[in-house]
Formats: sequence, structure tokens, C-alpha cells
Amino acid sequence: MNAVPLGREHRQARMLLTTWSEPGDDDLAAHVEAVGAARAVDEILTDTSPLRRAAGLRTRIRDGLRSVDELVAPIEEQADRCGARFIMPGDAEWPTQLDDLLTRAPLGLWLAGAADLRRLAAFSLAMVGARASTPYGEGVAREMAADLAVAQWAVVSGGAFGIDAAAHRGALDARGATVCVLAGGVDVPYPRAHESLIARIREQGLLVSETPLGGAPMRQRFLTRNRVIAALARGTVVVEAALRSGSGTTAREAHALGRAVMAVPGPVSSPQSAGCHALIRDIHAHLVTGSRDVLRHVDPMAVEPDDDWRDDILGQREARVLDAVPLRRPAPVSRISSTAGLVEADVLAALGVLEAEGLVERVPSGWRRGSAPREASPRTMDG
Amino acid sequence: MNAVPLGREHRQARMLLTTWSEPGDDDLAAHVEAVGAARAVDEILTDTSPLRRAAGLRTRIRDGLRSVDELVAPIEEQADRCGARFIMPGDAEWPTQLDDLLTRAPLGLWLAGAADLRRLAAFSLAMVGARASTPYGEGVAREMAADLAVAQWAVVSGGAFGIDAAAHRGALDARGATVCVLAGGVDVPYPRAHESLIARIREQGLLVSETPLGGAPMRQRFLTRNRVIAALARGTVVVEAALRSGSGTTAREAHALGRAVMAVPGPVSSPQSAGCHALIRDIHAHLVTGSRDVLRHVDPMAVEPDDDWRDDILGQREARVLDAVPLRRPAPVSRISSTAGLVEADVLAALGVLEAEGLVERVPSGWRRGSAPREASPRTMDG
Repeated sequence: MNAVPLGREHRQARMLLTTWSEPGDDDLAAHVEAVGAARAVDEILTDTSPLRRAAGLRTRIRDGLRSVDELVAPIEEQADRCGARFIMPGDAEWPTQLDDLLTRAPLGLWLAGAADLRRLAAFSLAMVGARASTPYGEGVAREMAADLAVAQWAVVSGGAFGIDAAAHRGALDARGATVCVLAGGVDVPYPRAHESLIARIREQGLLVSETPLGGAPMRQRFLTRNRVIAALARGTVVVEAALRSGSGTTAREAHALGRAVMAVPGPVSSPQSAGCHALIRDIHAHLVTGSRDVLRHVDPMAVEPDDDWRDDILGQREARVLDAVPLRRPAPVSRISSTAGLVEADVLAALGVLEAEGLVERVPSGWRRGSAPREASPRTMDG
Repeated sequence: MNAVPLGREHRQARMLLTTWSEPGDDDLAAHVEAVGAARAVDEILTDTSPLRRAAGLRTRIRDGLRSVDELVAPIEEQADRCGARFIMPGDAEWPTQLDDLLTRAPLGLWLAGAADLRRLAAFSLAMVGARASTPYGEGVAREMAADLAVAQWAVVSGGAFGIDAAAHRGALDARGATVCVLAGGVDVPYPRAHESLIARIREQGLLVSETPLGGAPMRQRFLTRNRVIAALARGTVVVEAALRSGSGTTAREAHALGRAVMAVPGPVSSPQSAGCHALIRDIHAHLVTGSRDVLRHVDPMAVEPDDDWRDDILGQREARVLDAVPLRRPAPVSRISSTAGLVEADVLAALGVLEAEGLVERVPSGWRRGSAPREASPRTMDG
């Protein structure tokens, strides 16, 4: 054991482990959970690790380097050179919602950028979608991201072509914060065509990655990266997606984590919207048409549910009749009719609708407001 | 009392009452329910009706005509001239699902056309939408209606410009049956520009109205007409609708009647799709993208839910892992990994998703198939 403080020892150990292993290595994560990172490193260095993949991990250690300090030094130098930092569970900047990933939680994260990840992630929304997006989807993503940024929410995405880029750009244009979770190292801008976009994100927000510095964006890393996007944010909005797409995976990860899953509809003739429609139809993702809808699902205080609810669910006739129904003392249809200024046939039709919604109830002497909880009732129609 | 058989007496009485009253007159319907149509007519003719609107009804009776036979004769002549027929509850052609309207049920219906209403309505879907529709919505309506017609379902709509007309045309083009519920009399084609379309519907399907022959399509009659459309069909599909539209009313009527309510999504930037999105978002109307989706909600036997469900809800990775999880005897992650041909990190991620769906369960010795009813689980994510 080195003479360094326990905190530093663990930080060094986790740094090394993220450098040696692949993101989402569940066996390793469980072992670290059980024996601690320092011991897991020590076991690997001394060839005593019970991990089946330990031999593979050892091949990544450069010959001749055997002490933790020696091993960590080049990594820390690299971090200094590119202005990156390493955070791990327990750090002030560690977003605790990542703990929801349980055994699939990252051992640590590499960050680059001025913003504080924990603060940004606390009020953040993931916005993801097709690389092969349409102008429609890009327009929606950009506008929605800008609106969310104005409302002080950070937009988390993956820096890819198409919807991801539109989401980052919308947030940046609105002078908001945006978080780009990369599949490669935070010092490896990918795709290369987004080098300047990623530089802007680093300046105005944050770059985040599980992959060690210099790490290449590989296929497997994109998949494991998606779970970090889903876990960081309070909810995931899929703007455009083909059936069985990467964004679909992110949405399902978000779903599995109990996060709000939202999808933007589009023309039924557009294959780029087919994945969104499938999410709404099949796993009951919330249909969202704008930032107001989105915030309703992650921040119920952001909108006045009462009025929205009335306007959206009730027709004008029903709203008028509901206003004319007394709260407690029942009124006959004739009185409701004259109060509402509607003929009785209309009043009765409206009462039928309102009754089905649990908003009014029929008693022997007439009608009065129902006692059903209004939030619950619209859901009951489903199915 | 006349010497005619009871059946004829009641038929004549209901014919007269529909001629004198407005569709959806709830007081009248309740009174007919209580005392019978013949007595209700007799009371009106003898100035002894307890109905508050009886005086109004009497003004519609032509001077000098006082016996039921005298009163009915010109109506029957008119029906003969235009080839219309009158049906009422208890008739073989009466669609019993109209009884779901309870006190708002029509006293009778006027029909024109060769088809049998009860037979058509038994397997029918309402398709309604904006008059000011877009080419997108019209294309979707026409194609979906044609597909439903090919599947032997009748398409019910209101004959209006826009979506209604596209729905009727789609069904007609596919040589299917379509039902047009008019706000005016079945001998009053409205809108006039649809005279030839309505003639085609009459030939290939049916014209239906509560409004007596010769009756003009008035504003109030469009509203009360919507409830008949909603009640006749097994479900209502809204193709395009502005917020607070007539189609929204029809959807809410269908909802109140316990019918399936479905809506077609569209671009969030299109006001013509805003009403559809509100229905999906706020009253949890089913999102449908084609006839296959529609039939799933009204005829569960029409599609194979099992395979659809798997394809739609699970990603490829999850489906592959689910196949590798034994039904009863639990397997460790390593075995599932080699069976599925996926790395363990991926298998664990997939198991997390499958576990959240109730499809697999974790036991001390590994994983096995879950016992959760699979139809129920997808719904649990909502909220």
C-alpha cells in the first residue's frame, strides 16, 4: 500500500481501472463494490485478481510500470495537458442519479469544461435522435432545446450528427448549458466534423465520458454511453428515430431507470418518426410537442396543471357546463342549462362526458361536482 | 287509438316525433321511454303533454291534420319518393350499440342506401377530422380507410370536406362499405359540393340521419350528429383536428361511451395535428399510424399480439437476451452471455430492461423468465 491518503489512493485506482477496462464492465464494477478499487488494482498488479478478464486488463499495463504512482502519472499528465478532470462517486461534482444504474454504474467519469456536472445534471433533459434526421426533426430539436435552455434546463446529448447536434446547438444558441456525453475520450472530438461544435460545448457546458483520455469511440462504447445519458437526465426526449435505433435504446434505458420517456410525433409517412411513434404506442412514452409538454413531465410545478388540463381535455361546451354545475348543492338540468346558456340537450350531452371523467355526479335532485381526483381520471380511459 | 297493429302505431309515432323534435331532445326521449311513443304523440295532439317544449312541438304540426295517419301520410310519401326508410329500436336493422347513448339515444333513424345498418355498424370504425385538412391528413385518411375497407370494416364519417370526404373516398375506392351520418335529412346532400360523393355512398353503403327528411343541416344538428357517429362505430379515429374541434367532440363522445379513441400523429408544427396530439397526450387516445394499429384496438384477434409486442417493445439486444434466458431453471449471466453471443455488459444491460418489463427475474442462482403478465407490463411505465 502507498502512503497516500485513502481518497487519493481510491481516485488513482479508479482512474487506472477506467483506463484498463471497458465502460459497463459489470464483473469489474461488482468486484470494486465488494473489495474497493485500490485492492482491485493491487490484485491485478500482483496477478491475484479473481476476475476472469484480469489477464486482459493486465495486457493494457505498459511494461516496466508496476507501482500505482508510476501508472497514474502519465494519465494525470495527459489530463493536465488537455484540461480534463476525473470524478468518482463521493466527489462533490458526482451526479448521484448515476447510482440508479446499480451494478452498471460507471467507476468514474472524465470531464472537460467549466461547468459543474452535478449542478447541470440536477436539472437536465436528454434529447437524442436519429443521425439521419430530417429538417423537420432538426428544427424541432433546436427549438425545443433552446426553450429548455431558456427555462434553465441543461440539454444532455451525444454530439452525433442530426438530432444530437441540433439539440446541442439549440441550447448553445440560447446561451444555455449543454452536456455532451462522448463515446470516446473527452479529448477525442467525434465525429471530427463536429470539432468546433464540441469545442463550443466544452466552453459553454461540459464534455463527459467514461472512456479514458485518448480512447477511441468504438461501437460498444456508444451503446454503454447511452445508459449514462439516460441516467444523468431527469427525462429523455426522442425527437426522431427509426425503428430499433440507438435512441430507442437510450429511451428504454431511461424507462428501465424510471425516468420520464418522451417522444416527439411526426408524419406517419416518415421512417424517421416511426421509432418515436412506437415508443408512444408501445411503451407509452409521453407524446410531447414542445418544451412546455416536456417540463410538465419532469417538473410538475413548471406549469399550472389545472388550467391546462381543463383547456386540453374538455371541449368548450363541457367547460361551460362544468362551470355551471354547483360544487356541493345539486342543481337540476334546467338550472344548469339556464346558467350555462345552453339548451338542455347540449347540457345533458356535456354532463355525460363530464360524468365519465368523474367531474360531475348525478344525485336524485340533480347534478353536482364530482369528487374524483381530477389528475387520475384522464388516465382511466386508456385501454 | 287507431286500429293499426301496435308495431305500426309505434313506428308512426316515432316518425312523427323525430319530425317534430330536434335530435338529442333528452326530455322528449325520457318521456317516450316512460309512456311510449304513441302516448307521447297523443298527448301532444290533445294538448295534454307534460313536456315543457310540447307547445313548440305542436307548432310544427300542419293545421287541419289531427289524426296520426293523416300526419304520417305525407312523411311516408316523401320517404317513398326519395327511397328512404325509417328504423327504430327493436327493428332488425337497428344497431343495438346506439342503446349505449342511454337517454341521448335517437328515437329513430332515417336511412337511404342498399346496405344493412346493423350489419355494417357491427364492424365499423369512425374516421373523422378537420374540414380544413392538409394533403398529408387526406392521404393518411384515404389510405387508412381503404385498408380498413379491404379488411371488411365499414368506415363511418360525416360527409364533410377534408378528412371526412377522404375517409369515405378511400373506402369507396377499395370497393368497401361506408356510412355517412348526415346532419340534415338523408335526402338533403350536404355540403352541396359533395352531391356526387354522397350519391356514391348511398349506392355502395348507407346514408344515415336523425334529422327528418328534408331537414336542413343546422349547427346544433352537427353537434348531436357527432354522438351518433361515435356510438355507431367500435372506435373513432381522428386523423387531423385543430384544438377544440368538432372531431374532438366526437372523440370525447366515443370516450364517454367506452369506445376506442385513436388519433393519427403529425408534425408538431401543424395546427391540423394539434388536436390529435392533445387527444393522445391528455385523454390517452391511442396513437395509430395505420390500419394495423387501428384494428389492434377494436379487434385483438386481427393481429398476432405476441410477435408484434416483442418486435415493437424490445430492442434487438433485449429480444436476443430474452431468448437466451431459460423459462424455469435459472442461468447465470455468463451462460446467458454465451447463449446469446453477446458480451456480459450487454447482457446485463438487457436484463435490466427486461427485468423492468417484468419479463425476467433475478434469483440467487441467476436469471429466469419472469412471471409477469406480458400485456400488463408495458402499461406500467406510464406516469
